[in-house]
Amino acid sequence: MNLTTAEMRTSTAEAERELRLAEWARHLERSMLRKLIGVIAQPGVLSFAGGLPAPELFPTQDFATAVADVLATDKRALQYGPPLTELKSQIVELMARRGVTCREEEIIITTGAQQALNMLAQLLLDPGGEVLLEEMVYSGIQQAVAPLQPRILSVATDLVKGIDVEAVAGLLSAGHQPAFIYAIPDSHNPLGVSLGRADRQRLVALAEHYGVPIVEDDPYGFLSFEESTLPPLRSVNDNWVFYVGSFSKIIAPALRLGWLVAPEKLLHRLTVIKEAGDLESSALTQRAVSGYIRSGRLPAHIDRLRGEYRCRRDAMLNALAATFPENVRWTNPAGGMFIWVELPEHVDTVCLLEASLAREHIAFVPGAAFAVPGHDAGHCLRLSFSNVSPERIADGIARLSNVVREFV
Amino acid sequence: MNLTTAEMRTSTAEAERELRLAEWARHLERSMLRKLIGVIAQPGVLSFAGGLPAPELFPTQDFATAVADVLATDKRALQYGPPLTELKSQIVELMARRGVTCREEEIIITTGAQQALNMLAQLLLDPGGEVLLEEMVYSGIQQAVAPLQPRILSVATDLVKGIDVEAVAGLLSAGHQPAFIYAIPDSHNPLGVSLGRADRQRLVALAEHYGVPIVEDDPYGFLSFEESTLPPLRSVNDNWVFYVGSFSKIIAPALRLGWLVAPEKLLHRLTVIKEAGDLESSALTQRAVSGYIRSGRLPAHIDRLRGEYRCRRDAMLNALAATFPENVRWTNPAGGMFIWVELPEHVDTVCLLEASLAREHIAFVPGAAFAVPGHDAGHCLRLSFSNVSPERIADGIARLSNVVREFV
Repeated sequence: MNLTTAEMRTSTAEAERELRLAEWARHLERSMLRKLIGVIAQPGVLSFAGGLPAPELFPTQDFATAVADVLATDKRALQYGPPLTELKSQIVELMARRGVTCREEEIIITTGAQQALNMLAQLLLDPGGEVLLEEMVYSGIQQAVAPLQPRILSVATDLVKGIDVEAVAGLLSAGHQPAFIYAIPDSHNPLGVSLGRADRQRLVALAEHYGVPIVEDDPYGFLSFEESTLPPLRSVNDNWVFYVGSFSKIIAPALRLGWLVAPEKLLHRLTVIKEAGDLESSALTQRAVSGYIRSGRLPAHIDRLRGEYRCRRDAMLNALAATFPENVRWTNPAGGMFIWVELPEHVDTVCLLEASLAREHIAFVPGAAFAVPGHDAGHCLRLSFSNVSPERIADGIARLSNVVREFV
Repeated sequence: MNLTTAEMRTSTAEAERELRLAEWARHLERSMLRKLIGVIAQPGVLSFAGGLPAPELFPTQDFATAVADVLATDKRALQYGPPLTELKSQIVELMARRGVTCREEEIIITTGAQQALNMLAQLLLDPGGEVLLEEMVYSGIQQAVAPLQPRILSVATDLVKGIDVEAVAGLLSAGHQPAFIYAIPDSHNPLGVSLGRADRQRLVALAEHYGVPIVEDDPYGFLSFEESTLPPLRSVNDNWVFYVGSFSKIIAPALRLGWLVAPEKLLHRLTVIKEAGDLESSALTQRAVSGYIRSGRLPAHIDRLRGEYRCRRDAMLNALAATFPENVRWTNPAGGMFIWVELPEHVDTVCLLEASLAREHIAFVPGAAFAVPGHDAGHCLRLSFSNVSPERIADGIARLSNVVREFV
């Protein structure tokens, strides 16, 4: 017998008992964006929705060679092991290409950029604390902070100038002490806009002055369409900027490899947080990526991506200009994967998406997927140009414009 | 100019300002175990320390073939994508081999078992809540709950019978309501002991009766040395047992793939928590592991591991019996990778490790690395037999016994 008599007496009733969840977990919901990705991946749908790199541009053969080499020659490839020093050194070189000087001792290899955001939320944010986000912002940062149930301070984003730095100054000078300011200075997700030089300097100066760190998320910084680009915020300040980088958009998402550049004195704490999350990132993937970079082919590969994505951006901008109504505005991205479209305020882009899918089999992400609580982007939408050929972009935007004209 | 005059005036002083960390992060320390792994991985050290599988037993060639096939034939292999349904179906079959009936809809693929533990802590544990752990327990669960700063209820573990189920009953009947009970019923880490049938039934009955879920961590369950093994707790109860599985020990750690079997109604919440942590686990690795399993070679591979690790366990048990002093006790594991050694209470195994490294270049993990706060295992140590050949085990244990004799 496994229960005492007293226990037996109530066991049937108790079997109906509800499992108690952590308080925050009772309310959590899947982000609209992640839910949409499932819905939109239907055959026959032309999708401008997900932030997917173009799979035909993946360096598949070169990466396959690198994996095969590592498995054939390196006995540590499938074992537990410390972070790969050679990869850290290669990341230091990559950062130098972005205009950032850093050292191996300031780098943590992460399981994608999302893990880095998750780690920084745990490092910096107390339960119920404050964070400063833009009103429209990558949903992954909202998910990363959600378990800590923060109060979200928000600032607007200008479609041309990016994050409203004066609004940041206003919040900080009013006495707010957020755990961090989250920023995507280059090729913003979802807006596609990049921050100008003066605003970069000013934002970092504010961070230092008020003692509020910046989490700089830079998945698209290497994918600039311009000849010369501004360096990231991290190049301006070593102590108050945590830089988050990713191999997902410049090599491939399935690597699940990113990195964090942080003040060296915090590395041991971040290492503990990383280990609590998943012990370590794959030794095999780290070695294969390192081998691929060692082959010297990454710079040319990135240049190819920049050229291809620039063509796709141009195709989308041209198609928007040619077919969309006059009372619609959109951003003009200098890099990355996204264009943000503002329709007249009365339009509901969730309804627009339903109509667009039903009538034209075309998908995008409604702006509401990116809005922080208390804000609304119901009349906006995000278009991704990275995973569709220029010809199909032209056709798809023209078809989408037919649906848009019925709503504006 | 980037700062207002008022801001300029204080900027030098402010630059000295300390970054504010989340309260829990100010106190966090790296686990002794993870620190040791770095120290011990020195050339010339014979290590019984890390829980490392034997790399010469990895199915490297078969896995390399699986990766190459996937990269050559599957365009989704390097892209973002949903969890691989075929792999879930293969996990259902693996679970059936362990005596567990479950469905694909109850499975979440995770980035190693550690991520599953981390996710369950977030799902079940409120900040400052209670969890029930054994006094000596895998340090990864202690790291997983640490950000939530729980009060830890603890129960002893018997070297023969495993977790003290009566002590669990005592805590629950006294009114404690921990967020979960953490258990490793098969080939416990660090003790190597497995739970008997009656205690399994009783533990699950208690969980159900008191409405306290069990987190069943089963990385070693497939590595049993016996002909017949008891099924996991999950086979007894679908609603109150969260089962955590891992490919790290049966294929390779660098895959960073594990899984969670949970009640279907909680899958959407766990999916959100998983996405917040790292978006998704590698599409490439999921497909390669699935391809390897599809080749049909995993069962024979697991049988080979069981045979090899059984030889190593036997070599270690024989060497301990032949060379260790009489006032030392150790466990007799029926599977897994570990033997737990109890020395006389006055021995400090951290000092013993220092002496053992200095004089014999032999490493192990001091028991203190596994003790929950308020408990002490300073006279105990963990030996891992999985990553050393039987011949070197015999030699190493004999040499270690020379040092032990000076301490007991």
